[in-house]
Amino acid sequence: MSTHLLVLAGGVGGAKLALGLTRLFPPPVLTIVVNTGDDEVFHGLYVCPDLDTVMYTLAGVVNEETGWGVHGDTWRVMEALDRLGGETWFRLGDRDLATHLRRTELLHAGLTLTEATRYLCERFGVRHTVVPMSDDPVRTVVETDMGTMSFQEYFVRHRYVPRVQRLRFEGAEKAQPSPAFIDALAQADALIVCPSNPLLSITPILAIPGVRARLAAVPGVRVAVSPIIGGQAVKGPAAKLLEEVTGEPASCVGVARLYGDLCTHVVIDQQDEERRAAVEALGYRVTVAQTLMTSEEDKVALARLVGRLCGALP
Amino acid sequence: MSTHLLVLAGGVGGAKLALGLTRLFPPPVLTIVVNTGDDEVFHGLYVCPDLDTVMYTLAGVVNEETGWGVHGDTWRVMEALDRLGGETWFRLGDRDLATHLRRTELLHAGLTLTEATRYLCERFGVRHTVVPMSDDPVRTVVETDMGTMSFQEYFVRHRYVPRVQRLRFEGAEKAQPSPAFIDALAQADALIVCPSNPLLSITPILAIPGVRARLAAVPGVRVAVSPIIGGQAVKGPAAKLLEEVTGEPASCVGVARLYGDLCTHVVIDQQDEERRAAVEALGYRVTVAQTLMTSEEDKVALARLVGRLCGALP
Repeated sequence: MSTHLLVLAGGVGGAKLALGLTRLFPPPVLTIVVNTGDDEVFHGLYVCPDLDTVMYTLAGVVNEETGWGVHGDTWRVMEALDRLGGETWFRLGDRDLATHLRRTELLHAGLTLTEATRYLCERFGVRHTVVPMSDDPVRTVVETDMGTMSFQEYFVRHRYVPRVQRLRFEGAEKAQPSPAFIDALAQADALIVCPSNPLLSITPILAIPGVRARLAAVPGVRVAVSPIIGGQAVKGPAAKLLEEVTGEPASCVGVARLYGDLCTHVVIDQQDEERRAAVEALGYRVTVAQTLMTSEEDKVALARLVGRLCGALP
Repeated sequence: MSTHLLVLAGGVGGAKLALGLTRLFPPPVLTIVVNTGDDEVFHGLYVCPDLDTVMYTLAGVVNEETGWGVHGDTWRVMEALDRLGGETWFRLGDRDLATHLRRTELLHAGLTLTEATRYLCERFGVRHTVVPMSDDPVRTVVETDMGTMSFQEYFVRHRYVPRVQRLRFEGAEKAQPSPAFIDALAQADALIVCPSNPLLSITPILAIPGVRARLAAVPGVRVAVSPIIGGQAVKGPAAKLLEEVTGEPASCVGVARLYGDLCTHVVIDQQDEERRAAVEALGYRVTVAQTLMTSEEDKVALARLVGRLCGALP
């Protein structure tokens, strides 16, 4: 039986599996490490989209329709900001804004991002460990046919229309994993790579020096859940981006290839049964399952499957 | 007839007389220089209480009940921030917050405070020139019997209960007047010191090197309106503070003494008729008038009186 699971997550898909895992495992078992490459400063406020999506999801306050922001939030500030000619393409609800105000205040007061995240999680009643991949700034920069832009400009402002040529993770070369991530790298009995965008959510984590090798050295099962189902992403640009960057049609096979030495197991969707052999040919043990997580039952069921693969559940 | 009036203002009282002046004079005639010693960063946002009170007042959107903030504002963000354990003693309404977000965004983009203020004023439809006293940071620090604190901590958090021993204006010694202030110092035909708190709103302006001497050298009439009426402040700690710092009962005489060489004329309230001789004894020409500004008519009437004293109105 595993005693410590290291979970890598990005935004919506990662948050969903993370929620399932928190329903099955008590806090000490999980370290949920979240991508911060998408972080950006808006209007002077430090915004962490992936950390917030995971936190709001685990707290049960996420806007399930959008996958980000707070359920039932209002838009008073954005409306006023719009009248002042402010940049409002990145929508920040009023309650959501309070999170960014508080985080910015805590960071200005000298807390690390890990500490500020812990503080906010406590306030939102999240008892499991959610940590940034690093307390150092790492910024995903997207080189496209429409120019070089920040991740949020690419993703939100331009709705991932630009064709991506290359991704860079600025600052990654000087970044260190966050303290809880370092501990989990040393202690974990298994690794779970959530069905988040491989290039945008997981690769930034792997770009931190030493992380990929240390993840590959986690003993026991290292399992990735493919976010690509039947050649398509459940949400967002994962499929489009994979095709643009790898030059091949998006599929769970392409995802498995990206993770290479990182994982021992891959979970693919039942729609991709026919691709099982191709993934196995890459050296993985493959499990076919329903991976689309619509209801909470779906999330818990997938989490249970992954937990069993890791030997952490009977 | 004067052609250019230099107006010094702080918060509420200054904003009221400034509003009256803008009803009588077209934009090129007035330069309204506002105290920035009260400015503070809250939650990473750059907040300029006096500039905003003047801007909101001239724009006709001020909350007249409080004298600050936007009329009819809502408090969604503050409510959420309160639940997150944020510091909410400095109340920022949702619409008001948008102003601070936009200003912070503009300052981060490299604009000076003068430029950011001009931008915001344009958006709020304020056509008259409202400028910060300086684009450099000057911070009013209050030394009290309860310890040393920032102006906002003293004023808002502790509701000016602490007994003030000394005021300091950090950064003043290295600050320069803002460009429009420098122009007005060179061009003004008259000076109007609004009925703002002499120690907290006007003294910070005078603390910028060279300003006091250049103001005293403005040709023509230099008139101050006493904010102390019958020994009391209309609003805020002016009277209490004057007593604590000067050791004398607050009165228009004490105000006049503070302004010393700065002004040639003082306007005192009709309630202070009996103190006329004492103010005249300090070398001033004194006008007795109704200085309490409740209605818009009051503001325009006092502005007209001051404008006439300056020779700028028939």
